[in-house]
Amino acid sequence: MNPSDDALLKFELPEIIYGWGSLSQIGQCAKRLGGERVFLVTDPGIIAAGWVDESLKYLEKEDLKYVIYDNVVTNPRCYQVDQGVRFYYQKECDVIVAVGGGSPMDTAKGIAILVSNHGKIHDYAGCNLITQPIPPLICVPTTAGTGADVSQFAIISDPRKKIKMTILSRAIMADISLIDPRLLQTKSQELMAATGIDALTHAIEAYVSSLAWPLTNPHAIHAIELVFQHLRNAVRTGNIEALEGMSVASLEAGIAFSNAILGAVHALAHPLGAIYDMHHGLANAILLPVVVRKNLEHATKKFAEIAKAMGLDTRGKSDEESAKLVPEMIQKLIKDLEIPTTLSQVGVKADDIPTLARDAQQDLCMGTNPYQYDAEEIESIYYEAL
Amino acid sequence: MNPSDDALLKFELPEIIYGWGSLSQIGQCAKRLGGERVFLVTDPGIIAAGWVDESLKYLEKEDLKYVIYDNVVTNPRCYQVDQGVRFYYQKECDVIVAVGGGSPMDTAKGIAILVSNHGKIHDYAGCNLITQPIPPLICVPTTAGTGADVSQFAIISDPRKKIKMTILSRAIMADISLIDPRLLQTKSQELMAATGIDALTHAIEAYVSSLAWPLTNPHAIHAIELVFQHLRNAVRTGNIEALEGMSVASLEAGIAFSNAILGAVHALAHPLGAIYDMHHGLANAILLPVVVRKNLEHATKKFAEIAKAMGLDTRGKSDEESAKLVPEMIQKLIKDLEIPTTLSQVGVKADDIPTLARDAQQDLCMGTNPYQYDAEEIESIYYEAL
Repeated sequence: MNPSDDALLKFELPEIIYGWGSLSQIGQCAKRLGGERVFLVTDPGIIAAGWVDESLKYLEKEDLKYVIYDNVVTNPRCYQVDQGVRFYYQKECDVIVAVGGGSPMDTAKGIAILVSNHGKIHDYAGCNLITQPIPPLICVPTTAGTGADVSQFAIISDPRKKIKMTILSRAIMADISLIDPRLLQTKSQELMAATGIDALTHAIEAYVSSLAWPLTNPHAIHAIELVFQHLRNAVRTGNIEALEGMSVASLEAGIAFSNAILGAVHALAHPLGAIYDMHHGLANAILLPVVVRKNLEHATKKFAEIAKAMGLDTRGKSDEESAKLVPEMIQKLIKDLEIPTTLSQVGVKADDIPTLARDAQQDLCMGTNPYQYDAEEIESIYYEAL
Repeated sequence: MNPSDDALLKFELPEIIYGWGSLSQIGQCAKRLGGERVFLVTDPGIIAAGWVDESLKYLEKEDLKYVIYDNVVTNPRCYQVDQGVRFYYQKECDVIVAVGGGSPMDTAKGIAILVSNHGKIHDYAGCNLITQPIPPLICVPTTAGTGADVSQFAIISDPRKKIKMTILSRAIMADISLIDPRLLQTKSQELMAATGIDALTHAIEAYVSSLAWPLTNPHAIHAIELVFQHLRNAVRTGNIEALEGMSVASLEAGIAFSNAILGAVHALAHPLGAIYDMHHGLANAILLPVVVRKNLEHATKKFAEIAKAMGLDTRGKSDEESAKLVPEMIQKLIKDLEIPTTLSQVGVKADDIPTLARDAQQDLCMGTNPYQYDAEEIESIYYEAL
């Protein structure tokens, strides 16, 4: 992302530990990273589901002290990060463990940034602005979608300014991503559907990104395959095979987008989160087919490959013909998952579109979209999705 | 690899920086890891090719001091590791940079182990026996094959005992793998061919390994595709596209095998290196088609996928029919590359086969082969390859 690094491609991941029941490793992982007092970031839903109690058992087994910080909401806020930082200092913690979806993980990253870099979280919005290494960080995802457990991203909202800040830095990659697909068992069907589409969006945007390369592509394509094989079943039946499939899909999509970055869907989704506090997966689901249709002509060959990964028989079809099937396949999946399909259904007002478009155009994720839309074009995408 | 971790799958990589001309980053990388005095491990061939002089220029630009250690040969020896360690202490170095193929990289890893863990390199042969973190390590591969730049493996020979010791530990993974396909331009055709088949062997063995999983498989399959697309051209014409293709093939094969481990080809190749000092890529090339033919029935479905990755049209064929084409495709490639095809051509004697087989059966890499061959079966594989 640094102009002088134009010719260089990069690929970096946390240590990944994956397996049914792997949550039991959480204490050993924290200890191995030198931790004695764990700052555990989570949310009330995860606590109610019982995963925090189970985690504490494993921390106690390793004689680790801990405090729990659960003041976390969807689209996590800058003041929650500040509160977490005070709490972290007060309790003299030395390792951060996030157990939850994207919101607890992003909150944990925000806290980690300020604990060692000080100042306001706003100071770090943008690319590579973090100078001091963060405390050891372990992420345990409980949703299959966000990818925050493997990514170099954190998104924090300032509700007063109505902005979502994108923080992108190698410095905020977790040390360990501990992935236990068992934790998906307590997700609601709505959340499974929305986060599943988030994973699909990550994979598609990473695959057509201008920074995609041979190390990110196989993961992006495989994630798309897995979403189309498993998401419907994961939502409807929650069977083990489907949960494991979606767990790996989310992981591979995360690996792909963390290293290839994203595109216009995310650029347009972030202002919806900032202004309407809309769930990120839902915003993506509504925007994805519309943006993909616009992007088709700018990455036709890649979308033809995506069609194949979605399970379509593309033999005898031209790339154009195959690519055109992609938005239809996405729409069909979203319809089957019973996710809202228009922005007006979820309360977006036409009057806000110019503001949304202005923020979207400036979003960091727009830079790697296969085509750079101007403000007018972005407005027309929002209108089409309305 | 730990019995208590049976249900857990792991995936870990160095930070990867890839690009034509990326060698220029070597000084910045060493500095970023906290280095002031670089211990540069290489071999006389790499020095003659000019890559060390170029590297020193970049180290000097960052005001780094350096010493060069180039007493490295094919199948690097334990006494060379010991000598390197003395030299490292003497010069008070604080970061290790390997510029070269598998031999300089494995020597560098051996030195790194003893610098911080002390004792003899023999003490660390086996799985996870390293307890102290090694000094910062940067690998710059100059051959497209070994994968040592991304792997958790190092292979060191004891020529007196005629053994090749396999050291497997997360602790010896490099911090940064800096991959500049430009460095392949000075490779001989023979070395390009042999190391290319080494990469192919890594990819095939990782794909059929009992530890293969969704995170290693896409890289293994893509590496096989790339070898069949680019190796012939890389050897014959050395054109940029082919060199880049083989560079990525080697990288992805390395990622796959470092995390899924290897199989019988490597188990049988290691004793050939130990007893005959045979080049590792050459030993693999001779053994690969024979071992694959034996393995076919134990991983038929996977070999059918490999056939597809090799570019075969497998439509309308059963898995058995597709799988059977794999050894033929390998033999054809090896013939086109004009690599020796029998062990007797390179001086192996039938009398040594019982000794070779005994050592191969005990090799760490045998444990993840899809089938566990007994000593008699291993002897018959050597005879078949003779």
